[in-house]
Amino acid sequence: MKLTELYTHVKKDLQQIEKELEQTISSQHPIMQNAGNQLLKAGGKRIRPVFVVLSGHFGNYDIEPVKKVAAALETIHMASLVHDDVIDDAELRRGAKTVKAAYDNKVAMYTGDFLFAKAIELMSDIHQIAAHQILSYAMKEMSLGEIQQIREQYDLNQNVRQYLRRIKRKTALLIAISCQLGAIASNASIELQQRLYRFGYSVGMAYQITDDILDFTGTEKELGKPAGGDLRQGNITLPVFYAMQQLPGLKEKIGRFYKTMDESELSSIIDTIKTSGSIQRASKTAQSYLADALAAAEGLPAGQAKNSMIKIAKYIGRRKF
Amino acid sequence: MKLTELYTHVKKDLQQIEKELEQTISSQHPIMQNAGNQLLKAGGKRIRPVFVVLSGHFGNYDIEPVKKVAAALETIHMASLVHDDVIDDAELRRGAKTVKAAYDNKVAMYTGDFLFAKAIELMSDIHQIAAHQILSYAMKEMSLGEIQQIREQYDLNQNVRQYLRRIKRKTALLIAISCQLGAIASNASIELQQRLYRFGYSVGMAYQITDDILDFTGTEKELGKPAGGDLRQGNITLPVFYAMQQLPGLKEKIGRFYKTMDESELSSIIDTIKTSGSIQRASKTAQSYLADALAAAEGLPAGQAKNSMIKIAKYIGRRKF
Repeated sequence: MKLTELYTHVKKDLQQIEKELEQTISSQHPIMQNAGNQLLKAGGKRIRPVFVVLSGHFGNYDIEPVKKVAAALETIHMASLVHDDVIDDAELRRGAKTVKAAYDNKVAMYTGDFLFAKAIELMSDIHQIAAHQILSYAMKEMSLGEIQQIREQYDLNQNVRQYLRRIKRKTALLIAISCQLGAIASNASIELQQRLYRFGYSVGMAYQITDDILDFTGTEKELGKPAGGDLRQGNITLPVFYAMQQLPGLKEKIGRFYKTMDESELSSIIDTIKTSGSIQRASKTAQSYLADALAAAEGLPAGQAKNSMIKIAKYIGRRKF
Repeated sequence: MKLTELYTHVKKDLQQIEKELEQTISSQHPIMQNAGNQLLKAGGKRIRPVFVVLSGHFGNYDIEPVKKVAAALETIHMASLVHDDVIDDAELRRGAKTVKAAYDNKVAMYTGDFLFAKAIELMSDIHQIAAHQILSYAMKEMSLGEIQQIREQYDLNQNVRQYLRRIKRKTALLIAISCQLGAIASNASIELQQRLYRFGYSVGMAYQITDDILDFTGTEKELGKPAGGDLRQGNITLPVFYAMQQLPGLKEKIGRFYKTMDESELSSIIDTIKTSGSIQRASKTAQSYLADALAAAEGLPAGQAKNSMIKIAKYIGRRKF
């Protein structure tokens, strides 16, 4: 079953949001138009708009504000994707092409800035001050999460708390406020706003941990890139922490790999991690976040929106890629 | 006379805004703290906060909203400075240090993102929807201006209209909305909001054109960098357009310089431009923008704020560096 089949009853609204997104992305100048179209195609799941729309149904649902909030949050997500690609790219093209790469990167950076501004513009139709405070806080945290990731890259002495804070900032928070702002946009009660935030936060954490597990267990075909990519890039994820806790020699082994960057060493490290039981342990952690999400969802008023949210949460727990 | 002496009567309020800025910039993590402190030191003129405060005096002046708007706009200015430095720097440090440079650049990019988010957070206390729409529009235009500059760099076939649109987006617009939002923050009439916008826009255009002139006429000591830096970097400014219109061979000569990057060729080009009368013609253009600014200011209610704005406008016309 596809994720999109879980929310057929809001399909029409999501189509409207897609139109809003196309208008938002469509721009005066070709480079950005190009980047925008790629983003729209790559977009895929639209998890954030879906949660805005579903959460909106727990208040006095009005597609107009819901549409703006959903498009704004997806645009912020896209802007963060654009900024994520900046400079890495320049690295790959080091040497003769650097100037060109730097140009492209600078354009990408300002394209991201443009999209952030577009998102703020969409939000300016939302009159609740709380919505603006919540969004700006999340944007701050997202940028801090990126800086945290840069600083903690290749650092094998960091702890699980740092990892959890990082994925909260980079993934869970935006999903959490998608639910919260959907509720605010339709004037749902504070209690429901907070409950939906908790739901989104827990789903987001489970979503990212599952992602980090799949980076080890997924096939190259499923992932569209070789497995262990996170570890290769110095991004230490939950299965690695758990494996290092269990296998005393592993930390040094990974440290050696980061010096030699010897791929055969990496694949043996990946096998070690996969057979250490740390994958199962990480899955348990993801499941416990999902349990929190389902517990939060249980307290929601009955209805299709509630059912869809529960189905999506369960799907995310099951997804294989 | 120093610029700061022109607005002594709002000194106390500017000190409060400086505190607000320090709080805004001060951050949990060292890299950004560092960047922030440099920005605070480099900050200097604080033209935008000054115009917010002075414009605020044309309504029911309340330091609280004025302070937030002033800090927000200066923070956006700082964020744009941080993003301006991204990648150029990597260029200078091409080769062995590229990875390090790319890291620094990525941190700088996210530091800019953090500052943009901080600015939005400051603005979230402002209840007028118009203020948010005006700000997000300006942020969009600023990012488009940066992309425009990248695309038009080294392009000797562009026209003066493109230059004027570029400096509007990169400089004049933010100064214009500093005046406009100061008026909105203190609930001044729409007529005054628009008049102050026109004042700020015209001052901003004159300010940037003067800047572009000084890049040719200033001494290395005054500029803190060798003269002709804009032309060297492929940034075609008003004196260059005027000189190319007057001297048929100049365009080809500059084109050759961009191929050879021969510094002796550049200094002969700079001398040609300085003796072509195009500097005087560019000054006339700046003066005509200042005349527009003073005309807009004339219609403002009498008082110290009006006098200060007129003095600042005249000062900007006279400034030598």
